[in-house]
Amino acid sequence: MYVGVIGGQYCSEEEARAAYEVGSLLARRGATIICGGLGGVMEAACKGAKEAGGTTIGILPGPFRGDSNPYVDYAIATDMGQARNAIIVRTADVVMAVGGEYGTLSEIAMALKMGKKVVALASWEIANRGTPDDKIIRADNPEEAVEATLGTSGR
Amino acid sequence: MYVGVIGGQYCSEEEARAAYEVGSLLARRGATIICGGLGGVMEAACKGAKEAGGTTIGILPGPFRGDSNPYVDYAIATDMGQARNAIIVRTADVVMAVGGEYGTLSEIAMALKMGKKVVALASWEIANRGTPDDKIIRADNPEEAVEATLGTSGR
Amino acid sequence: MYVGVIGGQYCSEEEARAAYEVGSLLARRGATIICGGLGGVMEAACKGAKEAGGTTIGILPGPFRGDSNPYVDYAIATDMGQARNAIIVRTADVVMAVGGEYGTLSEIAMALKMGKKVVALASWEIANRGTPDDKIIRADNPEEAVEATLGTSGR
Amino acid sequence: MYVGVIGGQYCSEEEARAAYEVGSLLARRGATIICGGLGGVMEAACKGAKEAGGTTIGILPGPFRGDSNPYVDYAIATDMGQARNAIIVRTADVVMAVGGEYGTLSEIAMALKMGKKVVALASWEIANRGTPDDKIIRADNPEEAVEATLGTSGR
Repeated sequence: MYVGVIGGQYCSEEEARAAYEVGSLLARRGATIICGGLGGVMEAACKGAKEAGGTTIGILPGPFRGDSNPYVDYAIATDMGQARNAIIVRTADVVMAVGGEYGTLSEIAMALKMGKKVVALASWEIANRGTPDDKIIRADNPEEAVEATLGTSGR
Repeated sequence: MYVGVIGGQYCSEEEARAAYEVGSLLARRGATIICGGLGGVMEAACKGAKEAGGTTIGILPGPFRGDSNPYVDYAIATDMGQARNAIIVRTADVVMAVGGEYGTLSEIAMALKMGKKVVALASWEIANRGTPDDKIIRADNPEEAVEATLGTSGR
Repeated sequence: MYVGVIGGQYCSEEEARAAYEVGSLLARRGATIICGGLGGVMEAACKGAKEAGGTTIGILPGPFRGDSNPYVDYAIATDMGQARNAIIVRTADVVMAVGGEYGTLSEIAMALKMGKKVVALASWEIANRGTPDDKIIRADNPEEAVEATLGTSGR
Repeated sequence: MYVGVIGGQYCSEEEARAAYEVGSLLARRGATIICGGLGGVMEAACKGAKEAGGTTIGILPGPFRGDSNPYVDYAIATDMGQARNAIIVRTADVVMAVGGEYGTLSEIAMALKMGKKVVALASWEIANRGTPDDKIIRADNPEEAVEATLGTSGR
C-alpha cells in the first residue's frame, strides 16, 4: 500500500509533529510513503517513517535528485514543476493531507477526481456553490487519520 | 491576454449558458481563451468566444487533437492526463472557473499556488482549518466575472 | 495540418535560412507550424511562416509565455523541461527536422515511435546494430522537404 | 548511483539475456536500476537485479502501478505516455541502452542533451549530417557495459 502524504513545504511545528507521527504510524503498519520529496510536512512524514523502519519515495518538481529531503529513500527528479503533483496522486493508493497550502489542495482535488480516498488532518475544507463537499474524510489526530487511511481499501 | 476558462466536462444548462456568455464577453474584449479543450463548460466557453470572433486554445489530456470540441481553434494533444491541468494554468494570465468539478478545483488550487488571479462563478469555496480563504474572487454573473477577470492585471 | 518543425535553439546561418524557407513554404501551403517556441531553427521557421501569412504555435519548456520567440502566435508554457518535446510531437501530424541537436533527435525518435512521418533536412541519421534505419525521409533542400512532408498524409 | 537501463518492451532472447546480466552485475556493484517498468529489456534487467539482491524502480507510462513487471520494487504511475521517458533519464545518473527501439533512442538522445553518460550494448548508432557522433559509449558485452557505466562518474 502506497500512501501519498501531502502538505506544505513550509509548516508549523504542530503540523510537523503531526506529519512525523503519521509517517511513523503508517510505516509501522507497512505502508510505503510517497510524497513531494521536499521539506516541511513532506520531510517530517519521511523522517517519522524512516525512524520507524519504513520506506519513502519522493517525487520532486525539479531536475535534481539531490534536492530531496534526507529521509527520502528513492527520489524521482521529474523537472515538471506542479505537474509532478499528478504523479504523486496517481501513484498513491490513498492520500493523506496534513495541513497544507494551495499545492496540497490541488493534490486533494486530483485525488478526488481520480476516485481515490482522501483523509485530511487540519487541512482544507471545500464547498461547491455553498454546499459542503464531504468526500474528504476528516481526522482529528494522527492515529485517527492513519486508521481512516488504512482501515479500508483506498480505491 | 490569455484567460483560462475552467469547468466540468459535463455541466448543467445554466452553467453552459454562463460559460457561453463568459466566452463571448472575453472574446469581445480581446482575450484569448485557453481551456481543457473538451465538452461541457469548455465547449460552451469556446462556442461563445468563436461566435464573438475570438480565438480559442484547447490543451487536451489525451493523445488526439481530434478529441477537442468543435470550437477549439488550436488543439494541443498532451497525452498527460490530469497533469495537463498544470499547463493550462501555467499558460493562462488569469483563471476563471465556471461551476466545476474536482478537476476544476485542482486548477483553481494550482493557479493560486502560482500566484495567479482566480475568478469564480458558481464554483468552489475553500476554507483552511475552518477559516474561509478569500483569494478566490467571487462573481455573481458573467459580466461581473469578466470585469473581475480583465479589470486589473492578472499576475 | 500541423507540422512540427524541430531543430536546435542555436543553429548555423545556413540552417536558419533553410528553416526560414521551410516555414515560408509550409505556411503558403496552409500548414500550421508547431515547434518548441525558442530561438535558432524554431525562430527562423516561425519567422518564415509569419512573413508568409501563416500561423505558429510554440510549446515552451519553461514557465513563461514571454520566453517565446517574437514570431510565435500562440505560446504554451509547459514548465516541463524536455518532457515538452513529447507534446510537440504528439500534437504534430508530421515532423520535419532541420539540422538539430540531441533534443531534435529525441523528437525524431518519439515521432517514429508514435508512427508519424519524419522528414529530415541536414539532420540525424540513425542505425541499429549497424543496419541503417530508413524510416527518416531525407530531403536535400527546403522545397523537397516540404513536398515530402505535405505530399502524402502524415499518419 | 541510479542507472537507467533502457530498451524495448519486446526484445529478442539474446537481448533479454544481456539485460538480465547487466541488471545482475549492476546490482552486485550496488547500483539501483531505474527503468520504464514494463516488459522486455526492462523486465529482464529488473529480474537480474532482483535475483542479485538489488533494488529496482519502474517509471510507468500508464496510470496503474499494477502494470509494472513483477521485478519492479517501486513503481511510479505517471499517466504521461512517452513523456515519462524524460523522467527516467532525468533521474538516472548514467544511462545504459540494451538493444532498443525508437523509445530507447529518444531516451539516449535526452540523456545526451542533459549531458549524461550513455553506454550502449547492441543498440543505436547516430550520425549528424554524415559525421558519426561518438558520444554514445559502445560496449561489446554486459561486463564491458557495466564497467563503462560505473567505471567513472556519470555526470
